[in-house]
Amino acid sequence: MRDVLIAGIGQVPVGEHWETSLRHLGAKAILGAMEDAGVDRLDGLYVGNMLSGPLSQQEHLGALLADFVGQRGIEALKVEAACGSGAAALRVGYAMIVSGLAEIVGVVGVEKMTEPRGRETTAALAMAADGDYEADHGVTFVALNALLMNRYMMEHEVSHADFAGFAVVAHANGVNNPNAMFRRPITAEQFVRSGVVASPIGLLDASPIGDGAAAVILASRDVVRALGGSRPPVRIAASAFSTDALAIHDRSDLLFLEAAARSSQKAYEQAGIRPDDLDLFELHDAFSIMAALSLEACGFAPRGGGVRLAQDGAIALDGRLPISTMGGLKARGHPVGATGLYQVVEIVQQLRGDAGHNQLPNPFWGMAQNIGGSGASVITHILQAPE
Amino acid sequence: MRDVLIAGIGQVPVGEHWETSLRHLGAKAILGAMEDAGVDRLDGLYVGNMLSGPLSQQEHLGALLADFVGQRGIEALKVEAACGSGAAALRVGYAMIVSGLAEIVGVVGVEKMTEPRGRETTAALAMAADGDYEADHGVTFVALNALLMNRYMMEHEVSHADFAGFAVVAHANGVNNPNAMFRRPITAEQFVRSGVVASPIGLLDASPIGDGAAAVILASRDVVRALGGSRPPVRIAASAFSTDALAIHDRSDLLFLEAAARSSQKAYEQAGIRPDDLDLFELHDAFSIMAALSLEACGFAPRGGGVRLAQDGAIALDGRLPISTMGGLKARGHPVGATGLYQVVEIVQQLRGDAGHNQLPNPFWGMAQNIGGSGASVITHILQAPE
Repeated sequence: MRDVLIAGIGQVPVGEHWETSLRHLGAKAILGAMEDAGVDRLDGLYVGNMLSGPLSQQEHLGALLADFVGQRGIEALKVEAACGSGAAALRVGYAMIVSGLAEIVGVVGVEKMTEPRGRETTAALAMAADGDYEADHGVTFVALNALLMNRYMMEHEVSHADFAGFAVVAHANGVNNPNAMFRRPITAEQFVRSGVVASPIGLLDASPIGDGAAAVILASRDVVRALGGSRPPVRIAASAFSTDALAIHDRSDLLFLEAAARSSQKAYEQAGIRPDDLDLFELHDAFSIMAALSLEACGFAPRGGGVRLAQDGAIALDGRLPISTMGGLKARGHPVGATGLYQVVEIVQQLRGDAGHNQLPNPFWGMAQNIGGSGASVITHILQAPE
Repeated sequence: MRDVLIAGIGQVPVGEHWETSLRHLGAKAILGAMEDAGVDRLDGLYVGNMLSGPLSQQEHLGALLADFVGQRGIEALKVEAACGSGAAALRVGYAMIVSGLAEIVGVVGVEKMTEPRGRETTAALAMAADGDYEADHGVTFVALNALLMNRYMMEHEVSHADFAGFAVVAHANGVNNPNAMFRRPITAEQFVRSGVVASPIGLLDASPIGDGAAAVILASRDVVRALGGSRPPVRIAASAFSTDALAIHDRSDLLFLEAAARSSQKAYEQAGIRPDDLDLFELHDAFSIMAALSLEACGFAPRGGGVRLAQDGAIALDGRLPISTMGGLKARGHPVGATGLYQVVEIVQQLRGDAGHNQLPNPFWGMAQNIGGSGASVITHILQAPE
């Protein structure tokens, strides 16, 4: 199988970009990645986005963005897998290079959420859940996660305060990321005392929506050598995608993310590594309960043990498994269709040694896991540092 | 490059399916294709759909449909390229087989348009156009096509009545297709006298929206041999995708579909054939002007000559280039994200000899061209008959 390399990265700060349109956000990230890779021509562009239709009254982002970045004529399409859309688009771009159908492509995740036109944002996000059996009954996404968190707290006999570490670490790391939405530290006490959104989930359990875009340029090994990028390429050592039932009531076990387990297991096999080999893990901490469940599904903790990792320092930058090293969804922000690309861009920063104040010491393996819905689409990528 | 074969097809009649939900429509087509191919397990599912978010308040169709057809756990995602979403999803499924990342996958196009919840359908369809520069100014899709048709009639000195043949042939062919929405013939006189939708476009120039789903099963050659399908597999001899500016005012030439020309040219090269070699062409006759422009861009007529093919009998079942052999978008109906798969399913029927009353005599090469927007995304596939 052909090697696929990340030749360049680009991103815009996550925030409320009321003066920047969807197409401008996407173009900035793509053009940034093209400049970083030293390329001026792509064979294809794959756009991860969930909500441009309902929120911006604009579909057809593939052709729109290809034209707007000066690549009119190339293949371009949008990929959607709810909040996992970004990594799903990366998966498609990866397949295009592996297949030999393309030699160099762009993948961008873009989402504009803070100025909804048409549907209100919370209602639009519920389109990731099962419309007929969840959303139509008024269950929002935070409510679904609240159900899971309550169940977790009951089954594993832990308290809401036990989850504080996830948000504390994310905010601590976001301080030094110029692209993060929230750049101030929080304390465990603030976490516990934050206002309730949907009991037991508080404001500081939940990642913020935002506007943002992040992009990568993928190329085959032969092509990368000929490019003018200033930074060394990072290899995609594994790409794996698994699904589960959309509705949580259709799952036999509420507290085990089957798709995350399958997806990460496939990724480990493809990369030829074990979970312990990873130097960092950008996980999908849309809610702190999702962070705990992801750690368990991916083999880092036994059932009920995910939350312990937030308490013993393991997930901090100097811990044995750093997560959310640039702020994660919680502090960097969660522009849903873009998130999967932000995760990958941040791992590339770490593996290249470009992570600034948050730089880990010589990381070699990094894993990004992007989740759509309450665990229904899980896409895992493992990246390997430049040789 | 690995051969990709179509091992099975499935479809539901296009219509107003008020008693059948989006997921049921999609599942019927997928399960039909799986039965036709003799498979009970897929490696991946790729869903072409444009408007499930705005019209059905449901995104995340990949995981939703994978679960609903008994394939929980597999990779599954949605692909969107406006009205070209169906063929764009086929392109992604094709890449998955070529790459070796999958051995057998499903591709389904599904759209439910006649019971909009939320956005009204015409407004939702305008999301295929440039939101900031076209749709926001009130230009609907039929209006954009009316502008093109007016310009064509002026530049090439033809009348509206000269286009009648496209609709007459499509309706004649739809009569014998049990999956077509309109199954009655029309006359050229009826075409001319039909009510005006957006001058000069009349009701019988325009394809109808509808609810529908069509699917194919793709597999590598090695895998196909081991399957239990009762019908011979059809080879995808070419797959090509090209884009153009979304907004028609951004194009240097209104009356030449650049992306259709590039996409078909790439497809001819990949298949190793010339336009004259084709035995049928399922083109994107969303409006009769689009049919004329497609024929010109794909090399079947000089500029201004596309409309002549509708007058001299060339496009009929017994003509030298049969088009819309099962009714086309005009008579079979145009459930936008599903259309690209209907086109391919119908060519498979022809190449297998399963086209019933509309069967062509021993066709060997068939081309399907699916268009998103007013020519901004054009995906062309060439299929080759079983050996």
